Amino acid sequence: MRQLSLDALNPAFQKVQYAVRGELAIKAELLRDKLKEKDHGLPFDKVISSNIGNPQQKGLDQPPITFTRQVAALMEWPDLAKLAPGVFPEDVVARAKELSNEIGSIGAYSHSQGVPFIRKSVANFIQERDGFPANPNHIFLTGGASAGVSLLINMLIDNPQAGFLIPIPQYPLYTASLAQHQGQPIPYYLDESNDWSTSVASIEEAIAEATAAGIVPKGLVIINPGNPTGALLNEKIQESLVKLCEQHSLVLLADEVYQSNLHRPSTHPFTSFKKIVSRLSSPVPLVSFHSISKGVSGECGRRGGYFECANFPEDIIALLYKMVSVGLCPPLAGQIGVDSMVRPPKPGDASYPLWKKETDAIHAALAERTGVMAARLNALPGVSCVDSPGALYLYPRIRLSEKARAKALEAGKEPDAFYALELLDETGICVVPGSGFGQKEGEWHYRLTCLCPGVDEYVGKLERFHLKWVENYGEE
Amino acid sequence: MRQLSLDALNPAFQKVQYAVRGELAIKAELLRDKLKEKDHGLPFDKVISSNIGNPQQKGLDQPPITFTRQVAALMEWPDLAKLAPGVFPEDVVARAKELSNEIGSIGAYSHSQGVPFIRKSVANFIQERDGFPANPNHIFLTGGASAGVSLLINMLIDNPQAGFLIPIPQYPLYTASLAQHQGQPIPYYLDESNDWSTSVASIEEAIAEATAAGIVPKGLVIINPGNPTGALLNEKIQESLVKLCEQHSLVLLADEVYQSNLHRPSTHPFTSFKKIVSRLSSPVPLVSFHSISKGVSGECGRRGGYFECANFPEDIIALLYKMVSVGLCPPLAGQIGVDSMVRPPKPGDASYPLWKKETDAIHAALAERTGVMAARLNALPGVSCVDSPGALYLYPRIRLSEKARAKALEAGKEPDAFYALELLDETGICVVPGSGFGQKEGEWHYRLTCLCPGVDEYVGKLERFHLKWVENYGEE
Repeated sequence: MRQLSLDALNPAFQKVQYAVRGELAIKAELLRDKLKEKDHGLPFDKVISSNIGNPQQKGLDQPPITFTRQVAALMEWPDLAKLAPGVFPEDVVARAKELSNEIGSIGAYSHSQGVPFIRKSVANFIQERDGFPANPNHIFLTGGASAGVSLLINMLIDNPQAGFLIPIPQYPLYTASLAQHQGQPIPYYLDESNDWSTSVASIEEAIAEATAAGIVPKGLVIINPGNPTGALLNEKIQESLVKLCEQHSLVLLADEVYQSNLHRPSTHPFTSFKKIVSRLSSPVPLVSFHSISKGVSGECGRRGGYFECANFPEDIIALLYKMVSVGLCPPLAGQIGVDSMVRPPKPGDASYPLWKKETDAIHAALAERTGVMAARLNALPGVSCVDSPGALYLYPRIRLSEKARAKALEAGKEPDAFYALELLDETGICVVPGSGFGQKEGEWHYRLTCLCPGVDEYVGKLERFHLKWVENYGEE
Repeated sequence: MRQLSLDALNPAFQKVQYAVRGELAIKAELLRDKLKEKDHGLPFDKVISSNIGNPQQKGLDQPPITFTRQVAALMEWPDLAKLAPGVFPEDVVARAKELSNEIGSIGAYSHSQGVPFIRKSVANFIQERDGFPANPNHIFLTGGASAGVSLLINMLIDNPQAGFLIPIPQYPLYTASLAQHQGQPIPYYLDESNDWSTSVASIEEAIAEATAAGIVPKGLVIINPGNPTGALLNEKIQESLVKLCEQHSLVLLADEVYQSNLHRPSTHPFTSFKKIVSRLSSPVPLVSFHSISKGVSGECGRRGGYFECANFPEDIIALLYKMVSVGLCPPLAGQIGVDSMVRPPKPGDASYPLWKKETDAIHAALAERTGVMAARLNALPGVSCVDSPGALYLYPRIRLSEKARAKALEAGKEPDAFYALELLDETGICVVPGSGFGQKEGEWHYRLTCLCPGVDEYVGKLERFHLKWVENYGEE
């Protein structure tokens, strides 16, 4: 028989790239295994995973919210309320009972779009956040935001010339989904010199170029707060972006998974695109994505999230329902995680004081760490770093000398990937090179998370590595 | 702006059909809502969901396994072991501790392929089952079997003429995935007159026809135990099927999610295709799918399962890893559910007696109910029903008179869909018409699960409906 070989497979799969779990992350895992050996000979004693926004990962700093986990434990084994009297706060017992009445066993498939009761809770959360109503029937619970993004992109690509405007730098899920489903990325550039701002002009320019090349723009992807940039849009630019979508008949895909990771909310608040579209009474079809993986929830492993469709006709909602029904339903653990996120304890509830203490601590630690790290990175020669007002990351720019670039070329690597590999080899710190997110020709960056505890030790290692690098390779 | 409309979307989405959650299931949900009204005027007081193999659904009969849920509750809130001393059996506490050491928080992303430790447990389970080794690096944990099937089909379709041999009747995930990913179904027929057996000759015939039509067969889908048929393959036919794959260079996709739902294991045992391929030292690329949603586990809502690749080159394993990494990781609740399924309590463990009692009861209830239902269905005029030796379903054939067929035509429905709709309207019982699974031209069936309690009441309703139907429409 003929052996199975790569060239007999879907060619789109080979074009997919996803650097967040790519070469660097795979090498980091191998190093982590090697550290378990007695004489490992490595110049560090732990691997620090700064490559991925995974708040509860071993060695990182964000503990789960107790309320969320207590509700989840009771849903797993409802008898616990009686078997361990007094162990669960009374609001937790009441919440689990209410959910059980609606859901039944969390071991059963739910409605494919998600438990109707939880979708109503999400709609209430959106209404309270925005001051405009939300329709539970237009909300789809998902196994994390990624599953929803992939589905929507797959649905909106009606031919190989269909294009999506993607910010550069971007979270690589977007280019990966476009590669898999055979659509065209239309890159538009964010302005690093202006705190990674988004400009209508740069998007207009990208549309004109794409159209001239025969690509048909179908959607505009906005990540707000930004990933990897942490930037926050103000309402004025959001309004212009909605108008731009109207003008060009674009579907607006708003990735808003970091909406509660705000480090300076008084000067850099978050406004949802749903609120803007509602306030303008705009007809723009909008899909907004949210997730329990980020924010104070940080529950990546549950795989929970939702997307809300606005200005979608009912026949397209029915089509989406049919498609998600083939996958049966989103994970129930993720769905009840969504419920805990959108209905946290309120003042007066037994769980409120602890919930408040835990979430305040998470916000404060992340904000402080982000500021300290940005300041120390900015103090390094050849490094500049926008101090992110939101999300979980910094995206420093590194200027690399000709000598360093030549060495990278020799090693067959992009210069920033070469830098990141050396960083990993010497310090155990795993970051993602900017080439995985996109950047202007001739510029180099990397993304690192602000989730690692022990800033002094961690950034100290980064600093020592960088200074040694500059010693070896010189400045640009 | 131009409104978003169906004709501007991916045309493949519109071709997808998934009857298990289609018209009948949607109508059943509406009726369930209507029953909550005071004067609903419906001729029944509950809706019985026989359309889907969802063992823990409200009103159905299969409780969760206590051990699985105790481990899960402790993983959600590890402090419980101390806060509720003596409540958890000691083997549960030890298991949760072992898993926590390996995984850390279940709120963190795991390895994209699944927790390495759990993949090793799966490999041990496979080795114990088959007597041949399994490689943990070639095992992918998934969010249920469906996610894996869709990924593999998407990967293997390299052009629009790529085809997959699909049994008729089939579980409609296969045709739905082929429609979404734009490949060609190549139907081959199972032999109802011979207990839904699979024959090499009928597959050879299908290959010849497809090839003549310019379709290139890439894979053979086998569902064993069958869905909707419940049929079990014997080793002799399994060997011939492997040889056939060798001869035609086909990838063998073995859907084995019902492997532990065996009603008469002494005469109708299950043998995995992995065992057959290993014993023959065959080079056939094999993917076998398993799930925690079925069997005695029945944990549909956790979304857990795995697929194992055999005879896959490393570069294709790496490609699969890259693709699953874009989706980050399978749900942790599903992954620990897989661990509980492949490592149940053993004799001598504190949890063993209860586990044994619970699983024996599930097997016995399902076997008995299947037999009784098949016998009573067979006693009805114009109905014949193979008595399934496995899985969760029966797939009775119903002979429909010309008058009934004309009436269906008038209503714009397939005759069996028309029958099923009337059944739902009159009894509240929701089944899936055979047209959703495929059947020979001019034949009619429906699928119903054997999970509903109260056989007398339930089958009694079916019988009364059918007899009235025959009174109205006559026999074929």
